[in-house]
Formats: sequence, structure tokens, C-alpha cells
Amino acid sequence: MSQYRVLIDANDEKGLVHKVSSIFYGFDLNILSNSEFVDKESNKFFMRSVVDGDVNKNELINALTEVLPNECGIKVVEPKKKNIIIMATKEIHALGDILIRHEAGELEANIVAVISNYNNLESFVSKFDIPYITISHEGLERQEHENKIIEAIQSFEGIDFIVLAKYMRILTPRFVETFENKIMNIHHSFLPAFIGANPYKQAYDRGVKIIGATAHFVNNNLDEGPIIAQEIIHVNHAYSWKDMQRSGRDVEKVVLSRALKLALEDRIFTYANRTVIF
Amino acid sequence: MSQYRVLIDANDEKGLVHKVSSIFYGFDLNILSNSEFVDKESNKFFMRSVVDGDVNKNELINALTEVLPNECGIKVVEPKKKNIIIMATKEIHALGDILIRHEAGELEANIVAVISNYNNLESFVSKFDIPYITISHEGLERQEHENKIIEAIQSFEGIDFIVLAKYMRILTPRFVETFENKIMNIHHSFLPAFIGANPYKQAYDRGVKIIGATAHFVNNNLDEGPIIAQEIIHVNHAYSWKDMQRSGRDVEKVVLSRALKLALEDRIFTYANRTVIF
Amino acid sequence: MSQYRVLIDANDEKGLVHKVSSIFYGFDLNILSNSEFVDKESNKFFMRSVVDGDVNKNELINALTEVLPNECGIKVVEPKKKNIIIMATKEIHALGDILIRHEAGELEANIVAVISNYNNLESFVSKFDIPYITISHEGLERQEHENKIIEAIQSFEGIDFIVLAKYMRILTPRFVETFENKIMNIHHSFLPAFIGANPYKQAYDRGVKIIGATAHFVNNNLDEGPIIAQEIIHVNHAYSWKDMQRSGRDVEKVVLSRALKLALEDRIFTYANRTVIF
Amino acid sequence: MSQYRVLIDANDEKGLVHKVSSIFYGFDLNILSNSEFVDKESNKFFMRSVVDGDVNKNELINALTEVLPNECGIKVVEPKKKNIIIMATKEIHALGDILIRHEAGELEANIVAVISNYNNLESFVSKFDIPYITISHEGLERQEHENKIIEAIQSFEGIDFIVLAKYMRILTPRFVETFENKIMNIHHSFLPAFIGANPYKQAYDRGVKIIGATAHFVNNNLDEGPIIAQEIIHVNHAYSWKDMQRSGRDVEKVVLSRALKLALEDRIFTYANRTVIF
Repeated sequence: MSQYRVLIDANDEKGLVHKVSSIFYGFDLNILSNSEFVDKESNKFFMRSVVDGDVNKNELINALTEVLPNECGIKVVEPKKKNIIIMATKEIHALGDILIRHEAGELEANIVAVISNYNNLESFVSKFDIPYITISHEGLERQEHENKIIEAIQSFEGIDFIVLAKYMRILTPRFVETFENKIMNIHHSFLPAFIGANPYKQAYDRGVKIIGATAHFVNNNLDEGPIIAQEIIHVNHAYSWKDMQRSGRDVEKVVLSRALKLALEDRIFTYANRTVIF
Repeated sequence: MSQYRVLIDANDEKGLVHKVSSIFYGFDLNILSNSEFVDKESNKFFMRSVVDGDVNKNELINALTEVLPNECGIKVVEPKKKNIIIMATKEIHALGDILIRHEAGELEANIVAVISNYNNLESFVSKFDIPYITISHEGLERQEHENKIIEAIQSFEGIDFIVLAKYMRILTPRFVETFENKIMNIHHSFLPAFIGANPYKQAYDRGVKIIGATAHFVNNNLDEGPIIAQEIIHVNHAYSWKDMQRSGRDVEKVVLSRALKLALEDRIFTYANRTVIF
Repeated sequence: MSQYRVLIDANDEKGLVHKVSSIFYGFDLNILSNSEFVDKESNKFFMRSVVDGDVNKNELINALTEVLPNECGIKVVEPKKKNIIIMATKEIHALGDILIRHEAGELEANIVAVISNYNNLESFVSKFDIPYITISHEGLERQEHENKIIEAIQSFEGIDFIVLAKYMRILTPRFVETFENKIMNIHHSFLPAFIGANPYKQAYDRGVKIIGATAHFVNNNLDEGPIIAQEIIHVNHAYSWKDMQRSGRDVEKVVLSRALKLALEDRIFTYANRTVIF
Repeated sequence: MSQYRVLIDANDEKGLVHKVSSIFYGFDLNILSNSEFVDKESNKFFMRSVVDGDVNKNELINALTEVLPNECGIKVVEPKKKNIIIMATKEIHALGDILIRHEAGELEANIVAVISNYNNLESFVSKFDIPYITISHEGLERQEHENKIIEAIQSFEGIDFIVLAKYMRILTPRFVETFENKIMNIHHSFLPAFIGANPYKQAYDRGVKIIGATAHFVNNNLDEGPIIAQEIIHVNHAYSWKDMQRSGRDVEKVVLSRALKLALEDRIFTYANRTVIF
């Protein structure tokens, strides 16, 4: 008996649920959970089913491919630990939260390495027996620096996600393309407000009463791409921007960890700069 | 072309989604939205589909009945306004919020009447051209009083829901049985904390930092029954219990209106003192 | 025995609390509540005290003036109903929420009139015996239209606040200056995100997971000015922008009413595009 | 120049703010922040001021003692790291969150030791160079077990707080009295709902739509005592009680860390089973 996550996205048409569920029925699979969504505006259909039964994965994919439209996306994933690399700079909170969850067995992930442009977090990360790779940007052109990081990442095999846990340098489009749909970032504001540098300072200057954080996939630049999760907390006049930053960290770590779990459990579809989350 | 909400609950078994979606496909129905849930612990299956197409309602029910297990619940509902009666005592906020939403066309409901044991709200309700029926409890035994209310309610035909919008008297089991699964209440605490009289006073005495409200169906007594929606707000030491009560009203009205909308849109299944909400 | 709200703002210097509390002590006043805040960055001091005792208001002001710095703001306010005018366009929810609270006696306010550029809400507002003034913008230049509104507002005496309860037209700087520090607006996003037209459509297009509302004083243009209150709700992929708009209304009304209450209770100081709220 | 936190509680009477601020003024102290609260119902006055200046701590206390009522509580605290002991059982999340914050320099605390009745967390805690003391309860009477823990705690000097970070054993009144007002607990429900064993199972059985956590000082037994902080998250029908437990951990750790910070910064007064938090 195996368990599979079946992920389907297609242009919507009548009978898709019927077709997929017929295949499951034909293979004598048990549906443990099932979610569908149709975006009427863009006519897109999304479905995530968790099934178990005695089936060969490739046969299941073939059967689905036969009945579903040509352009359709079909993935059949076995639940197993994904390989992730975490990139950080100097701040410990978001990274630390992931490491603790990892330690507690909460995450379906192997943390393959932590890469940083500083060595500040090295002794901390080493406690967890996770390789820490310092790739300083000092004296290097942006391109050179990124090349070194790309090389380091590619020295590991089968990396599923690169998690920017407060990595404070802007990535070039080339970097992003190299790891398309694999880079997840935590931005320290409720996007799209306060894009760019020091959002807490910006938030303070605007006199806001809420601050927040946004986890998103990175497509073109650091603050864009499909949003996965957002959360806020209330602040008041007594908060300096440093206070906002301090309190904001609690939101950042929660939001990033939440988004990471969703990704690890294959719960996220992306399209048209948005996410469908089951 | 008609639109239908198809609601199915059954003991879970393999192939239920397949069977239902086959029927939809056979009738050439378009699935606009679809939600399923399986409670593994109790082995119960729930499904709510919104479909449109050119189909006769009874034929659809018959077809579903044929393929689904015997014990199964099948409802096919046309979206149309449901008839509701609101019961209140003296407080305006929860009642008023429903009336405004009704006025704004937000609710799939006809408000048939407001019934109260006081006449305090009569002039307010009359502004909205809704019948206001005062049935004073003074000088009456509980049973007599309830008989009068039951009579008043039954003088209207086809009442779908009775909404207790801060009706401050305890209802007897007999009353509740008379309108089984139709009575919705707002309790002014996050149940099951602070059951009984004056929950804000109780909350104040316990020194809580959050207060809340719970909308639920009423089964046996006023503070029990399947929970539909709950919400809280934060309070602090500066809140007297009167302040808690005042602030709590904002939560009460939001939660009750939210629950009412869910019920009017046929989004709630109840079983075993719990709700499934799609 | 009278009750007063004493509001002081000044450049910060040593001994301000001492000086003010000495005056209170000298007048044999009882401090019912007291809040202070010092913004170190801008060196500003704010204090709000509620006192009661047997004192002449002008004598209290004079005594405070004598001991406090020259540039200091001193207000002594008796708690009494403030006069407000509500401006709306076609939507009922934010306006309706204020009217219900007014009806319930929750607000320290007389609603002097509702002004709208459409007559859609007239029959609703009339139920509450509040004058409804339709000033259509059709066929009028912006300036002409605003002149008529200004005239209508100024025909009433002693207006304390003008509440824009989803008034959907942009106000000119001239209008804003005419009623400086008196105009409160509800913006249907968590500012500063989604400034401008149809923020829900913008939010949908960006694929956000939270939507919100912001109540603020209006200084230069409709979406700027000191923020008073903000709140959000979570949304997901299943929300169309119309769904966001519908759900957003619940946040809008809550936030606007909350901000209005703060203003009516003299709890808000504004400076440098921000608010201090006690 | 030194900074002090001045904490005063007294039966309320006219002129308390005046008297305290006069002393500050006389000592040429600068008030950095100031909070007061009067509980009218119990006639209690609370004040927390942060001041800086060139003053001797004892002289300041003497001066305050002279002008304030006899029964009054006066504390003048220099901001410095407090000594805490954390007690845990097997779960890592709440403990881990505190350790990460400690590592990040967020907490005004020395973590003197972690005490547990199991050795499961030993290797984890050791990474942080913090002593881990396993005191197994197996084969011991409750009293004996507690005696060993008390002994272990008392082997350290000057312990300010004992933090129960999911310590899953009930403490006897004797233990609680030994460390009166020093024990802080995280309870995994929004108290007073679901007191006792396995609150998530209880919450699941009741079909709630929110779950929460409560940080509180421990007075008589594990689930009572003045509440410091509470928070909730929303759940739905798809949550098993294990899911609730998993999600609940995120709330537990946030709430406990928040409460701990408040305590470390001398922001909490307790009286009559409640807290005043500045």
C-alpha cells in the first residue's frame, strides 16, 4: 500500500473530476482527501488528491494522461522528505524557527545546507550538524558572488527548495531563472506595501497601525512573485521602527515556516502570479 | 439553465466522488464548485457541489439515490431566499447588523418577523417594515410563554431558521425539539468557556486577555449544540466588565451574521455535535 | 462635580507630568485615567487625563497655561455629544453601522445630516429621522459640486467631524483645508498598499492572502493623512475580487466605527502624519 | 547616569501621580516612559515609570517611601538580566523558541538550567551550552520527585522565574508556595476552557472553531493563576485533534515567549488573580 499526492492543473472543462475520480476508482484507490478549485476568470482547474492503494506510480500517471487534456499538468508525488537549502544573512529568528521545527520532526525536509554571505550564524547552525557555507560578497561583483552561490547549491543533488530566511541581498534574474519556482522568500512587510529597503522604517514613517510579513515564491526580483502566506500584527504609536522590526520578526518566522510546510506537503499551485493552496 | 446546490453525507466508502461526479457528467452538468471532506474517525463523508445545467431536480435526486448508499443524505437545493424569524430581547446590535445586511441585499433571506419578549426594539424594527411581535413573559409560566412564541412562529409558513440575536431567555428542550436543527444562537463567549449567565462578568473575574463570541445551532440547551463560528478580540486590564460587554458586542454581531450567511448558503453540515462548513 | 478630558501636547522637557499633576492636585481634582507618551525621535510629549472635581474650566486652562511651555497645546473638553456629518455615495454598510450604533446610544455624537451625491440611500437614512441631502455631481465641475457641499455643511453650526463612510469621490485640497483635521475617511485597503481606484481589484490581481481597511484623517488627498485604525481579514484563492469586496465591507465598517469612537472620545492626537491614540 | 524601572502599587488616593512625579522632578530624573492604571472597582493604583538620571537607588526608594501611603508597594529595578530556569518534559517547541530568542539576544535573561523529568531534550539543550538536569519521576512519590527538583532549583542562587515550557506534570501547592509568584506556565487552551488533561482532545470533541493558549502565573494549581497573555488560531472541521495539537504548538510558543518578555521587563503587576500589564 502506497500513498500518493496527485496534483492536476488544466484548462477547465466539463467532466474533469469525473475523469480523475474514475481513474482512482478503476485503480481501486482510496481517496483520503480531495480538493478542487476552478478559477472562472482564467478558466483554470486545480485538483489535489491524496490517495492510497496498491498501484504503480507510472501506470497511474499514464492512465491519467490518457483521459486528461493534452496541456494538462499531472504530478504524482510520494510523500517523502524534500531537500532544501536555506540562505540567510545575519538574523537568526527565521532560520532558527525552521531548524527547531526540523529538529522536532515537524518538517518533511532534509536541510542540506545553510548558505550565508556572513559567518555570523555559523556556530549556531553547526550545533544542528548542518553544513554552513559562508560565501562572502565582499570584493566581488554581484555576478561573481552569485556564481559562487549557484555553484555551491548545484554541488548538492536534487534540491527542491531554496528558502531565503532573511537573506538580505537582491538576487539577479539570472539566479532566479536558474532555480525557477524553487525559491521562497520572506519579505518583512505585507506586500505590496513597503517594497524595497527597510520596510519597517517605511512603515514607521507612514504611521501604520499594523505591520506584517509575506512569504512568496521569487520570480523576477526579491519582492515579487506569487504570494503564499501573509500575516500581520497590530502596533501603536509607542513603537519605534526598531520595535516594529523586533515584533515583526515574530511574524516573519511564523509566516515563512507556514509557507515552507505548505510547499513541502505539495499543497501549492502557482499560476499568473498567484497561488492556489489546498 | 438552473443552478443547484447538491449536499451529500454518507458513511464513507470507496468511489463516492466517482459515483456522484459520474451522475453530474451524465446529466451534462457543469461543476461550479466542489468540496468534500472525510472524517476518518467517524468514517463520515460530506460533499457539497454547486452545479448548473439543464436538469430536472427530481431526476437528479433519483439518479443520485440509485448509486449512493441507502443511509445516505441527499439534498438538492435551488438557491433562493430562505425564511427566517429573528428573536431578540432588548439589545439592538446583532439584530441591527442583520437588518442592515438584509437591506443591502447581502442575505439570501426574507426576514418574516422579529419576536421579542419586550417592545423596546419595536420602533427600530418597524423602520424596516418588518413585523415586530412582542410576547411578554411577564406573568406567564415558561411553558405558557413558549407556547405563545411557538404559535406565533407556526403562524408563518415555511420558516427555515430561527435566529436568536441575543434572545436572553432560556429555551426549553420542547421548544428546541419543535424547531430541530433550525435554531441558531449567538453566545457571548468563546464556548465552552463561561457557559451560563453574564459571561463578561465571569470573564472579567477570571482576568482573561481575550473575549469572544460563538454562533451555534441549539440542540438541548442554550449554550450547547454544534458550533458554526467563533471569533475573539483582545482585552486588557483597563477593561471593566462593562467595557468587555461593549466591545464584545462587535464580535457577537460579526460572528452571528457570518454564521447566518453560511446557513443561508447551505454550507453547513452537522453531525455528532460538530459542523462541517464548506 | 464635572468631568473633563485634559489634552496636552508639547515639546518634551523634564517635569511636564509633575507640573500637570501638581495643577490637578492643587485644584483637588481626581485623576480617573491618565496616559502619556513621549516620542523621543521628535521630542514630543502627549498627555490625556480624565479628571473630575469641582473646578471652573477656564481657571484650569489658565493654571495649566501658566506652568506649561509657551508652544504647548492645551485642551480641556467636557464629554458631550459632538456634531458629525456623514458623507456617503451608494453603499450602505459603513453608514448603516454608524446609524445602528447611534441608535443604540453607543456614540457620543449627534448625526446632523447625511450628504451624498446620489439619492440611493435616502429612504434608508430617513428611517432614522436624519436629514439626507443629495448633492448630485452630474453636470457640475468638481469645484462647483464641492462648493455646494461646503455650503451645505456650513449651513450647520459647530460640526466637529465629517465622516466619509465610503464617499467615492476625490476631494480637492481646498475642500480638505476648509475642514482641516475634521475629515475622517475609510479606505478599503491596508494603506499604503493599493492606493487609488478599486483596491480590491488591485489586491486580487496581486494575489494577496490578506485584505484590509484603513481609517485615517484626510489631509492632502483621499488616501493620505494620519492613520487612526487598520484591520485585515484573511482571504484565499477562492475569492474573486467581488468576494474580496464583499468580505472587505465587514472590515471597513468595523474600522471606521472604531476610529470614529476614538475621535468622539478625544483619544487621538495627530502630528507629523501620525496619530497618538490613548 | 543610570536607568531605573519604578514600580508602585497602592490603594488609590488623590495625588499619587503628583507625589511620585514630584520626587522624580526633585531628583532631576527624566521620565522615559510612564504608565498608570486605577482599578476603580478594587480601588487599586498601579504605576510603572522608566526614568534615567544620576541618582542613588536607595535614596530614591526612601524618598518615595516617605511620600507614599504605608501599605504601598515600591520597587526600583535596574534593567539587567534575570535568572530563569526552564522546566520541560519532552516537547521541544516552546523551549526551543526561548532558546533561539536567548541566542539572538532578545531576552533579558540568563537561562541557568533546563530541568526535565525525561532526558529526551538533553542533546538539544546541550547544543546551547545550557545545563540540562534530568530528574526522572519514575519510581518516586510525587513529593520525593518535587523535593529533588526544589533542591536542584535551590542549588542555584537568585532565580527570578521558573518557566514551565510544557512541563507536563502537576505541581503540588507546596512546590508552588516555595516559588511564589515566580512560576510561569503555558497552558494549551484559552483558559478557562478545557482545564485539565489533553485540552486539544477536549476541544476537538466540542467541535470548536478556535484553539488557543494561555500563559499565566501559577498559584494554586497548574491551570489557575493570573493570566498574562492569550492567543488563538482558527481551526476547521478538517482538523483532527492531532492537527489541533500541532497547530496549537505555534500559538503556545508565541504566547509563552511574549509573557516571558513581559515578566523580564518588569511589566507585570498581579493582584486578585489578575494582571496589570504595562
